[in-house]
Amino acid sequence: MAQAHWGCCPWLVLLCALGAWGHPKSVDLTAEDVRNCLISPPYLPVTVVNTTAQLTALRQQMHIQNLFAYIIPETDAHMSEYIGTRDKRRAWMTGFTGSAGTAVVTMGKAGLWTDSRYWTQAERQMDCNWELHKEGSWESYNMALMNSNIKLVSITPNLVDQAWGSEKPLVLSQPIYVLQEAFTGNTWQKKVSDIRSQMQKHPQAPTAVLLSALDETAWLFNLRGSDIPYNPFFYSYTLLTDSSIRLFVNRSCLNSETLKYLNSSCTGSMCVQVEDYSQVRHNVQAYASGNVKIWIGTSYTTYGLYEVIPTEKLIEDTYSPVMVTKAVKNSKEQALLRASHVRDAVAVIRYLVWLEKNVPKGTVDEFSGAELLNKFRGKEQFSSGPSFETISASGLNAALAHYSPTKELHRKLSSDEMYLLDSGGQYWDGTTDITRTVHWGTPSAFQKEAYTRVLIGNIDLSRLVFPANTSGRMMEVFARRALWDVGLNYGHGTGHGIGNFLCVHEWPVGFQYNNIPMAKGMFTSIEPGYYQDGEFGIRLEDVALVVEAKTKYPGSYLTFEVVSLVPYDRNLIDVSLLSPEQLQYLNHYYQTIREKVGPELQQRQLLEEFEWLQQHTEPLSAKAPHTAPLASLLAVSSLAILGCRV
Amino acid sequence: MAQAHWGCCPWLVLLCALGAWGHPKSVDLTAEDVRNCLISPPYLPVTVVNTTAQLTALRQQMHIQNLFAYIIPETDAHMSEYIGTRDKRRAWMTGFTGSAGTAVVTMGKAGLWTDSRYWTQAERQMDCNWELHKEGSWESYNMALMNSNIKLVSITPNLVDQAWGSEKPLVLSQPIYVLQEAFTGNTWQKKVSDIRSQMQKHPQAPTAVLLSALDETAWLFNLRGSDIPYNPFFYSYTLLTDSSIRLFVNRSCLNSETLKYLNSSCTGSMCVQVEDYSQVRHNVQAYASGNVKIWIGTSYTTYGLYEVIPTEKLIEDTYSPVMVTKAVKNSKEQALLRASHVRDAVAVIRYLVWLEKNVPKGTVDEFSGAELLNKFRGKEQFSSGPSFETISASGLNAALAHYSPTKELHRKLSSDEMYLLDSGGQYWDGTTDITRTVHWGTPSAFQKEAYTRVLIGNIDLSRLVFPANTSGRMMEVFARRALWDVGLNYGHGTGHGIGNFLCVHEWPVGFQYNNIPMAKGMFTSIEPGYYQDGEFGIRLEDVALVVEAKTKYPGSYLTFEVVSLVPYDRNLIDVSLLSPEQLQYLNHYYQTIREKVGPELQQRQLLEEFEWLQQHTEPLSAKAPHTAPLASLLAVSSLAILGCRV
Repeated sequence: MAQAHWGCCPWLVLLCALGAWGHPKSVDLTAEDVRNCLISPPYLPVTVVNTTAQLTALRQQMHIQNLFAYIIPETDAHMSEYIGTRDKRRAWMTGFTGSAGTAVVTMGKAGLWTDSRYWTQAERQMDCNWELHKEGSWESYNMALMNSNIKLVSITPNLVDQAWGSEKPLVLSQPIYVLQEAFTGNTWQKKVSDIRSQMQKHPQAPTAVLLSALDETAWLFNLRGSDIPYNPFFYSYTLLTDSSIRLFVNRSCLNSETLKYLNSSCTGSMCVQVEDYSQVRHNVQAYASGNVKIWIGTSYTTYGLYEVIPTEKLIEDTYSPVMVTKAVKNSKEQALLRASHVRDAVAVIRYLVWLEKNVPKGTVDEFSGAELLNKFRGKEQFSSGPSFETISASGLNAALAHYSPTKELHRKLSSDEMYLLDSGGQYWDGTTDITRTVHWGTPSAFQKEAYTRVLIGNIDLSRLVFPANTSGRMMEVFARRALWDVGLNYGHGTGHGIGNFLCVHEWPVGFQYNNIPMAKGMFTSIEPGYYQDGEFGIRLEDVALVVEAKTKYPGSYLTFEVVSLVPYDRNLIDVSLLSPEQLQYLNHYYQTIREKVGPELQQRQLLEEFEWLQQHTEPLSAKAPHTAPLASLLAVSSLAILGCRV
Repeated sequence: MAQAHWGCCPWLVLLCALGAWGHPKSVDLTAEDVRNCLISPPYLPVTVVNTTAQLTALRQQMHIQNLFAYIIPETDAHMSEYIGTRDKRRAWMTGFTGSAGTAVVTMGKAGLWTDSRYWTQAERQMDCNWELHKEGSWESYNMALMNSNIKLVSITPNLVDQAWGSEKPLVLSQPIYVLQEAFTGNTWQKKVSDIRSQMQKHPQAPTAVLLSALDETAWLFNLRGSDIPYNPFFYSYTLLTDSSIRLFVNRSCLNSETLKYLNSSCTGSMCVQVEDYSQVRHNVQAYASGNVKIWIGTSYTTYGLYEVIPTEKLIEDTYSPVMVTKAVKNSKEQALLRASHVRDAVAVIRYLVWLEKNVPKGTVDEFSGAELLNKFRGKEQFSSGPSFETISASGLNAALAHYSPTKELHRKLSSDEMYLLDSGGQYWDGTTDITRTVHWGTPSAFQKEAYTRVLIGNIDLSRLVFPANTSGRMMEVFARRALWDVGLNYGHGTGHGIGNFLCVHEWPVGFQYNNIPMAKGMFTSIEPGYYQDGEFGIRLEDVALVVEAKTKYPGSYLTFEVVSLVPYDRNLIDVSLLSPEQLQYLNHYYQTIREKVGPELQQRQLLEEFEWLQQHTEPLSAKAPHTAPLASLLAVSSLAILGCRV
């Protein structure tokens, strides 16, 4: 799944399309039906929300507290990428439902800052109470604040909540459950000891680590929940000190078994003291009054918690030690993630086979297709739903980087158009994310060239050998070069980390400037693309594991091993553009798919899918596509081996 | 010339070996003769400087002013890369002459922070008064300061100068001269108008620009001087306001003609008011008391000037508008720089031809060779000396990134060793910088492979097509990939900007993280390398112009056009490692060298050199090095054309 390229902080950067929210109206997506505030009376499309009442209520609150301005970010108290409905304060206040955008309200003005992906959407959803500030980056927004004499303070309770009042959705208390040991890399006790050992080795001698990001606490205790769509998280904070463990959570969501699992009836250094979620600020403030040093990751800590810790007692890193430790998967976690990708490939292949038969009939649309894919994923072992809202985009819709169809708004799939599918699953053993682009008819020469150059980018980055600890941002150009060569490019990032039944965009791994250097055991997506406005979109995304590279001369070098296992569309590959090395790599990858997914299909009696897989992983040849002697021989031999197991 | 990869600010990053200073003793460079402060009495090699008197004098001054610590950076008041002898305060205070390193003196302690390139040198030059802080980066130094309660203030006059007293070298008043119009891109009046126009368009409406870097003032007024070795600069500041121009300089260095040229007898908006150099702080402070906004580039502004401008009257960018404007050369400046590179190639080729004949005799050493090269450069039209101290390094000496030979310390050149030559010239029309590595005997297979992979890196980056405004740091990996593939790498940056008879390291252009994005008209070096400790070093450096690329599909794309014109060593190229595209590029480059340098050699009757050039630019072929039919045909035909002009 593609990430935004803009932005400064993870909670501003980590974006993902959430479907239309609160507007189940049928709208033609191709029409340029936007507001016009320059005429009198203004023109407002039906999609616009009247926000006068919301703004009046908020300004009343601001007046009482004597505030000059109130900032409403799009995230929640944990800087989550995906947020619950009750945390969608900015959407409620502005009408704008895009996942990126910050609102600022003063007594006289109201403004929304968002980036180019969302300008049209904002003009369709906001009424004329709101100025739209078109941002290429967040810098000027920050600058505007800095150049004024505004003092940033946190206000409790949330003024939007007060304005929202009784209309605000209730907290849904979802049970928190223990992830079976078979699906965890280590016990929570081992993880706690590891983090404490890092605290001891730290030159500034922290006495505690404060965890704000929801996946930090979920990972540390091997607990999961359902408070956030697509993410198995629960609202929580953790204050892990050298002698105690405090988990801030809705206690009623923990049953007696889980409390026992957490060893919660004692107060020793390996006992988890369960405290109420609402007490975190008070509790951190009390702890900070002692002779302590609190280690935080600034990217996921709100200003409200940050400000209660005196500066001299703070140890600030961009990411907490839990975030950084979680990024490197141990061998058990690697095996779990790999296994989930094999089953995920089965689901995606089943869907692609079904599409190949049904799209020509004209009965498939983007939304019904996505639903069927969810169904296929749901049938896989350990399935726990999709890992994000499926991007199922046909023809020109695929040129919008974050388009998702809805029941009301969708396009029919056709043999005359390209189709882009970016989707993923949550499984108890791993989280997946894969993008394939297909064409069932006759693609244009330009479509084939663009597709092949995107594929070359994917291949060139995947097979790169690089020194240990190289930053992703340094090497991501290898995914762009084949496109640059002819004057093409793409406007989003090249990849992001991914979790073990955690976040589909798991920081801080990836290819953006604020990601940490690549290390053995990390998983990242690799996802170049190309988008032709108003016509089509291409993206080829795989998840890859960072592994040691064996180089001719000794040294600490790494490379990628792709764990996504779905073949690319042969109909769109122009083999003549591939170098011998790229072709060799591709055929080797196809051989791996056969070896790993073939037996799984056979075992499950998915013989039609097995046949399809064999056809689509037939070795490609630069000269004559169907007669490469050595490669074909290999293919036949592996077919024979696989055949025995049917 | 290679740059350091470490560091945070240009004045810490832009480093270059200055020869041994103040120690004309003969020392064996390969011996590990360093101080040992752990034994009693300490062991001190002869190269150590006794700094007790210096430290006592400084601490007396600190005591009088009640200071806790005094920081002594290695640069001057203009953040110059190269500094005059009188500005070498840190070297005088510590004994350590390396170009990178900051000293901090408290009443009880004295410490020097420097990076790994200089650790051995520091242990050889400093006595036991000094602690050596080994820095991989400057971060921990900054952190150490931040975590204390130290308040940074500027102290006038300089306490080191007061301690130095009468021993301090005098200011040498060198004349400042006007660069002839033929060698300038625009008149100073046009340049002043351009900068003022940028001020008017700026959203924060600056009323003035303050210039601290010496090349900013030199470029703006088309003036040159000789205050700094290798750089045609003079001590100066400029305060360019919307209605006045103030040049702070040693007035006695300007003759009446130059004063007239500057229109200095009036006070209008196009008159240059010449003020005394020492008055800049006072003058800026006075100006800043008005209703003004002063635009500065923080990278080249000292704290002493920064602190006299109230924060609300400051407009801070990393680089001043003059720095950024100067970076993009107009067509006249481009033509001038190109022309200087043709003549520079003649000088380097003459030297290489001479070496080929004389090295086997065993009569050439690193130092005498460098002196001869300087002589050849000096004979070229518009020559104004070398642009930096020549790095002339044979065998294992080339593995030290910034080694320069001296009259006392040098190695003999030999047909059994590789030889690395990194040198450049100052010419009235341009500054040059080129590195070639050669072997006159039989290189090992590993040397050939490493050399060829460095060459591939140079080629791959030089022929890269990239979108306009791409940052150099994003693309520099293309210069490393062929090395990474087999587990090799290099530890320095990949290139830097260069001036028109200005700085050989001209910021802010280059491939490091703090360089600005690439734009048409910029010049940068491209210089991958490989260093085998204790054995040999390879670097291949060319200067390239950023030009528009014609891509298959329309778009704003750029590429490089190499303007350095000296062939690589055929003896070290393993053609079988080059792809057809790389080979084609290389042969095309050789063709360009023939076309541009050939006629120049013939015109000058340098027939032996012409012959050498023809041999060394003979097209290479992957299959059979001497029988490529088409390429040879091309070569013969161009030989024929060139032949007519003899």
